Amino acid sequence: MKAVAFFPEKRELRVIETEKPSPKDGEVLVRTLAVGIDGSDRRIVAGEIGGDVPDSDDHLVIGHEAVGVVEDANGTELEEGEIVAPLVRRPTDRESRFTERGELDMAPPGAFHERGIMGMHGYMAEYFTTDPTYLVSVPDSRAEYGFFVEPVSLLEKSLEQAFTARSSFDWRPESAFVLGNGNLGLLALARLKTGDEFSRTYCLGRRDRPDPTIEFIEAVGSTYVDSRAVPVADFADEYGPADYVFETTGYPRHAVDAVHALAPNGVATVQGIPDKSATFNVDCGEFHSGLVVNNKALLGVVNSRKPHFEAAAEWLDAVSESVLDELVTGIYGLDEIEAAFTDSPGTLKSVVSFDR
Amino acid sequence: MKAVAFFPEKRELRVIETEKPSPKDGEVLVRTLAVGIDGSDRRIVAGEIGGDVPDSDDHLVIGHEAVGVVEDANGTELEEGEIVAPLVRRPTDRESRFTERGELDMAPPGAFHERGIMGMHGYMAEYFTTDPTYLVSVPDSRAEYGFFVEPVSLLEKSLEQAFTARSSFDWRPESAFVLGNGNLGLLALARLKTGDEFSRTYCLGRRDRPDPTIEFIEAVGSTYVDSRAVPVADFADEYGPADYVFETTGYPRHAVDAVHALAPNGVATVQGIPDKSATFNVDCGEFHSGLVVNNKALLGVVNSRKPHFEAAAEWLDAVSESVLDELVTGIYGLDEIEAAFTDSPGTLKSVVSFDR
Repeated sequence: MKAVAFFPEKRELRVIETEKPSPKDGEVLVRTLAVGIDGSDRRIVAGEIGGDVPDSDDHLVIGHEAVGVVEDANGTELEEGEIVAPLVRRPTDRESRFTERGELDMAPPGAFHERGIMGMHGYMAEYFTTDPTYLVSVPDSRAEYGFFVEPVSLLEKSLEQAFTARSSFDWRPESAFVLGNGNLGLLALARLKTGDEFSRTYCLGRRDRPDPTIEFIEAVGSTYVDSRAVPVADFADEYGPADYVFETTGYPRHAVDAVHALAPNGVATVQGIPDKSATFNVDCGEFHSGLVVNNKALLGVVNSRKPHFEAAAEWLDAVSESVLDELVTGIYGLDEIEAAFTDSPGTLKSVVSFDR
Repeated sequence: MKAVAFFPEKRELRVIETEKPSPKDGEVLVRTLAVGIDGSDRRIVAGEIGGDVPDSDDHLVIGHEAVGVVEDANGTELEEGEIVAPLVRRPTDRESRFTERGELDMAPPGAFHERGIMGMHGYMAEYFTTDPTYLVSVPDSRAEYGFFVEPVSLLEKSLEQAFTARSSFDWRPESAFVLGNGNLGLLALARLKTGDEFSRTYCLGRRDRPDPTIEFIEAVGSTYVDSRAVPVADFADEYGPADYVFETTGYPRHAVDAVHALAPNGVATVQGIPDKSATFNVDCGEFHSGLVVNNKALLGVVNSRKPHFEAAAEWLDAVSESVLDELVTGIYGLDEIEAAFTDSPGTLKSVVSFDR
């Protein structure tokens, strides 16, 4: 079968011919329908993050936002023909209670691989096998957009963490501010806008009009915030403070600045991963007292687990197809991999399709 | 009656003669037994924080860590002779759902006064009146130490926030690190050491031996961490990371550095309030990615509410009296106010007694 593999030594991405996998006992075989490409994929290919190859291999099959159809249920409870989206993390050999409890997203480094990101092949291949524990069902009507389940699950986890962290009192949030208009930011915005948690939403970018991301932000009824005119630290003064901030940029100052943007009792979840080092002058006095005096919370959030995938699949079922359709700006075949990975100002979401 | 009043215009603290208050309908009259002095009191007297006088007064009766005995139950459900500790915040005229729900600790600025700190007289007086909603019962056997209920309630709130924030997965913390060996830090350490949440505890200070705070830290079975040898940012390397950090120093860098000290999935609650401005060079890249990659949480926590006071009173009942006794290094009468407010290396907790 064909697969898209990254060779870290040569920093090369190309389509390879590899053996079609056979499901082991208890595993199923999934025929891939489509795989979304996100910022992490592009950073892997650029050699910036992850890309660790599986033991005794010289390449990593990439892709972690996938949707497929069960081709061989192999005696499991799944049904052939069922549409599924796979989770990303898998246990290593190290025993961990997080594996047993299905909480690999909270497991410490060393206890997991991330399929398509580090240590284990991903889903950008014609077929993949997996323990069905790591699959969620996607409604048939959304088979075409099932690769959105993984990125939406990241927001679902962040929302769960934020609301859980505020559950010991009567929190009544109204406004949400998404930092970043990349593909995760826009998808999160769509989710926040169509959910019932917040009545007002804002999205940060640094683009001039006309621009497709600004058009999307405004089409869903949200407010575009140009960070060149209104930096995150000034957001509260300009628009009123936000009850919830969802950070996707990985811009290192945003973890600190997000706290300034928050209303009393507000929560910021940060989820972008900046390069290791980036030193700034920070008014730690203001940061520290801002956190304390107004009971604010700052939560780091990485990865997600099955209930978050299930919540994401549920949202996908409920949201208007036109919103999803507007986000997909490019569907590419295996013969167009270079184009698929090229990011341009017109790119919202690029997808590699195995169905064409 | 006599009261200890702060006159902000002259920046003067002195004992005044003032009218003994009469309980209004629904209020009770409490005869004060003792009032603890903490860092906030000293900062008010130094003109650094709070000290706002009530409308139409030129002074603020200070004191917010109090224990007293109900002298006139005034037809309420309380009993005369009952030992009580009062909450700190009271509603302003502004309507707020936080008042109705007993969650004034989460109310926005403007919705509350803080007795003895800003806008409303405190408890360092022979008597005070209050709506009994803002009182908790203290066991008779702990009447002498009831002023500890308020500061312990701050830790109880922080612990509740930390555990609530981690309640969506199987968090199993083992170690707790208290930043600061002032009176709140040591009291928190005693609470953490005698509770069943953590099996190992550490406490940060910057003192040379022999020192009474180090002696207390080691007497309760905790490890002293000298910040001059092991800064907070290096704690994890030296002692292994902490699952929980309780910050009391108000040192502005500690909100940032606490995150470095945390284990994966760890929580830091910050509660010290630094002076507004203090700029440092901060590696925001490391701070941001440290939060994200390991699902860490940083929570600002201010004030506390009735269930936290009740939990504190319960702990007071359970803990060995000798631990409490070791913390109290000075009991002063109203004729020794200057001495009571003087901080020295030998001071752990100073208390103004109204019983002598």
